[in-house]
Amino acid sequence: MAPPIPIAVNGAAGRMGQRLLTLAEEDPALRPVAGFDIESPVTAAALREVNARALIDFSHADALEASAKAAAGAGAALILGTTGLDASHDGAIDAAAARVPVVAASNFSVVVNVLHHLAAEAVRLLQPDAAPGWDVEVMEMHHRYKKDAPSGTALALARTLAAAAGRDRSCIRLERHGDEATRDPGEITVQTLRVGDHPGEHTILLGAPGERLELKHVSTSRDSYATGALRAAAWAAGRPPGRYAIAEALGIG
Amino acid sequence: MAPPIPIAVNGAAGRMGQRLLTLAEEDPALRPVAGFDIESPVTAAALREVNARALIDFSHADALEASAKAAAGAGAALILGTTGLDASHDGAIDAAAARVPVVAASNFSVVVNVLHHLAAEAVRLLQPDAAPGWDVEVMEMHHRYKKDAPSGTALALARTLAAAAGRDRSCIRLERHGDEATRDPGEITVQTLRVGDHPGEHTILLGAPGERLELKHVSTSRDSYATGALRAAAWAAGRPPGRYAIAEALGIG
Amino acid sequence: MAPPIPIAVNGAAGRMGQRLLTLAEEDPALRPVAGFDIESPVTAAALREVNARALIDFSHADALEASAKAAAGAGAALILGTTGLDASHDGAIDAAAARVPVVAASNFSVVVNVLHHLAAEAVRLLQPDAAPGWDVEVMEMHHRYKKDAPSGTALALARTLAAAAGRDRSCIRLERHGDEATRDPGEITVQTLRVGDHPGEHTILLGAPGERLELKHVSTSRDSYATGALRAAAWAAGRPPGRYAIAEALGIG
Amino acid sequence: MAPPIPIAVNGAAGRMGQRLLTLAEEDPALRPVAGFDIESPVTAAALREVNARALIDFSHADALEASAKAAAGAGAALILGTTGLDASHDGAIDAAAARVPVVAASNFSVVVNVLHHLAAEAVRLLQPDAAPGWDVEVMEMHHRYKKDAPSGTALALARTLAAAAGRDRSCIRLERHGDEATRDPGEITVQTLRVGDHPGEHTILLGAPGERLELKHVSTSRDSYATGALRAAAWAAGRPPGRYAIAEALGIG
Repeated sequence: MAPPIPIAVNGAAGRMGQRLLTLAEEDPALRPVAGFDIESPVTAAALREVNARALIDFSHADALEASAKAAAGAGAALILGTTGLDASHDGAIDAAAARVPVVAASNFSVVVNVLHHLAAEAVRLLQPDAAPGWDVEVMEMHHRYKKDAPSGTALALARTLAAAAGRDRSCIRLERHGDEATRDPGEITVQTLRVGDHPGEHTILLGAPGERLELKHVSTSRDSYATGALRAAAWAAGRPPGRYAIAEALGIG
Repeated sequence: MAPPIPIAVNGAAGRMGQRLLTLAEEDPALRPVAGFDIESPVTAAALREVNARALIDFSHADALEASAKAAAGAGAALILGTTGLDASHDGAIDAAAARVPVVAASNFSVVVNVLHHLAAEAVRLLQPDAAPGWDVEVMEMHHRYKKDAPSGTALALARTLAAAAGRDRSCIRLERHGDEATRDPGEITVQTLRVGDHPGEHTILLGAPGERLELKHVSTSRDSYATGALRAAAWAAGRPPGRYAIAEALGIG
Repeated sequence: MAPPIPIAVNGAAGRMGQRLLTLAEEDPALRPVAGFDIESPVTAAALREVNARALIDFSHADALEASAKAAAGAGAALILGTTGLDASHDGAIDAAAARVPVVAASNFSVVVNVLHHLAAEAVRLLQPDAAPGWDVEVMEMHHRYKKDAPSGTALALARTLAAAAGRDRSCIRLERHGDEATRDPGEITVQTLRVGDHPGEHTILLGAPGERLELKHVSTSRDSYATGALRAAAWAAGRPPGRYAIAEALGIG
Repeated sequence: MAPPIPIAVNGAAGRMGQRLLTLAEEDPALRPVAGFDIESPVTAAALREVNARALIDFSHADALEASAKAAAGAGAALILGTTGLDASHDGAIDAAAARVPVVAASNFSVVVNVLHHLAAEAVRLLQPDAAPGWDVEVMEMHHRYKKDAPSGTALALARTLAAAAGRDRSCIRLERHGDEATRDPGEITVQTLRVGDHPGEHTILLGAPGERLELKHVSTSRDSYATGALRAAAWAAGRPPGRYAIAEALGIG
């Protein structure tokens, strides 16, 4: 068996950072060698010192630049699960990807990534826009403290569904109410529920007269996200530089 | 056994009218004696001629006045399941209720009415506004042709929940999206899905850290509404004039 | 546009036979030309007289032989949705398939057939028997009058899942209870619910620590089965003799 | 505000014992003062030394006798959530209840106890055995490691439903399969799913032609059980001796 891969975590003091370190400890394929945080910032020198082969960062968009520089400088794979990344971060990510392997994703859950694949398959097979027409909807449920609605994952699923149906993203709608709110056949509406401490679930619905299909992911803990990130780190460490898709890193497709 | 009660239906040509007549035929406690429609309008004389003891109307708000006058004139109980009734119809309903028994409701399903009762019980027992706080949400799913969103029943359930929690109706919200959309502890959000030909389902969620309760009604056909209306007609026929609550007519509470 | 395809139905007096004829009437691609029943048995001559290009039979296993002979004799495609077919009927089916196109299936719902495809995909992607292990379960719900449990469709889905995982059918179990009933990692358990008049739903669950995937089909009426059979009839009419898979007839795969 | 109530936990080294101590620490109404275990057995003297007013035990049926004696000897309320208690333990529990307040329950979740209440209400209102008949079923889902099936809570819910319907417990069935497995109108069948690390959910279904009601509890963590036990401890401490129902201790009813 190959020796365990040394990995480091940025945001080690946060809840997700701690789970990443704990689960890495339990995984015989990995060995956690360092945890960084605001008080102990990540640098290329620090990564080199512990010989880290991958750096996982789920912390904050503001931390991205330091993590990207450190990983690139130390030759470590970079695994980015930070929420709130947008086009303004592409420069830093691409610069890192020129020197090390990078996997950036809005959701590292294996099932969520399988769900994207199955959603596209379902659309391909049912052909929503052919008669009798299949209505496509997305629903998600999360804990009461979640800031954004819908979740980034729900929006990503809606975009996967729209793309598979050959539709423009403008078909995605986030609200439906009124006396004259009949469904437009081409729309995909995303609805959100917020209750208690639910770690998250996403449901895709495709319905026609007589029947419907529901594809659903339910998280029972945040570990689903940490596990996928660790799997991606083990996959990416040692690969050639470049930006890799999460589906490829998780072996889905 | 008592002889079957003669009942009449307004809107007999519509889908709901036809089911009401068919199901009344199958019910040994009832005997359908007349069906009215635009081509054959309901009048007190027509109701008297067939000795109808109850008139059921699920047709259209515009038909209300004629139905109310006819039932009142013939001494027949009036069962109103018309959607789209509002305060402007109260005059006609109250005038009828001064002379005959009237049951008007947004939903005649037995389970939906049980759901109102259970929802209020759940709120009473869980005390949403006490620590640790219970988030209250409502979700509904209906067929693609439904005009209004949310359904009248979903809004009625949200109002039942708000009232049981001692909150104002203004806590009911119909949309949730944005980057800063964290749940307000006191809100009740109603979300809607529209797929295929689903006859309708409503789910109430109450969630706190660690657990949640879901109370759900699923219609498998429109018969759930027709059956409740027939049961209310059998109950109301022969009672003193007045406006009766649907829960009382269905024996719930 | 091609002229509508003339189709005939055996079991025309039953509930399913009537829906097949009604829905064929509404479908511009089809033209119902004859309905047969015990009182008016199907024969090759009768099919030839109306020039039927396809015969659909959802009636009863006992009717199979006459339907197969009639279709083969008249050169009409044979669409078989009869429940309770087993190995003893293969002779009659194969004899017909030597002369006309035949599509025989336990379930003609488009979504159920898509579900088989998605279930196999999910198993391929998640690899249930690899660490951390994915528990596979099946649940189905049907109306109170259903005789067999689990449904033929639930068993067929369990077999699809077992085959995709490279397991023997003996991993499928139909009960779980007792003080020492811990799940065997390699089993697939099928559980059944029977309530009211539910036209049927099937759920596949794949769960690992941290998350699970649910794939669910819900029928809202028996039309989902009739629609698929009509689509298969339109597809099969005029093809070369042979036994075709339902997935091919529905264009799934 | 009253000073925090000193509580002790038996089984402090186990997962549940640790959560009880952690959550007690976070609760301003409570103060954890001692944790006992095999290595440090609970005794009346040890409870008196830390002035414990309540002892919570979720550990093991074998530990019951020592816990009961210790609590009784120290005048501490006894909260028992041990699984696997049966009639053979009644002697020890009753002996303690003669001297201190005791709350023993198979499930301390607030929602599960609310569910018992709502289930009985639903049965009272729908009258399952009256026409058209309501089919009653129970389904539960738990993690792969659970030993017993169905869960004690599912069986307790089935008994609550049977009692509310005026039926004997013999109506509860744990399996359904075969070619002639049509539902007996008076039965309540309990079905079980086991997937991943699900902390547990229970669903009650009541279905008739046209509609059904589903009442569902979903745990998102084991905290739902710990929280209820702490609430019961705070309620019981200082009450007169006796055996109290969990519903009373949680203020449900």
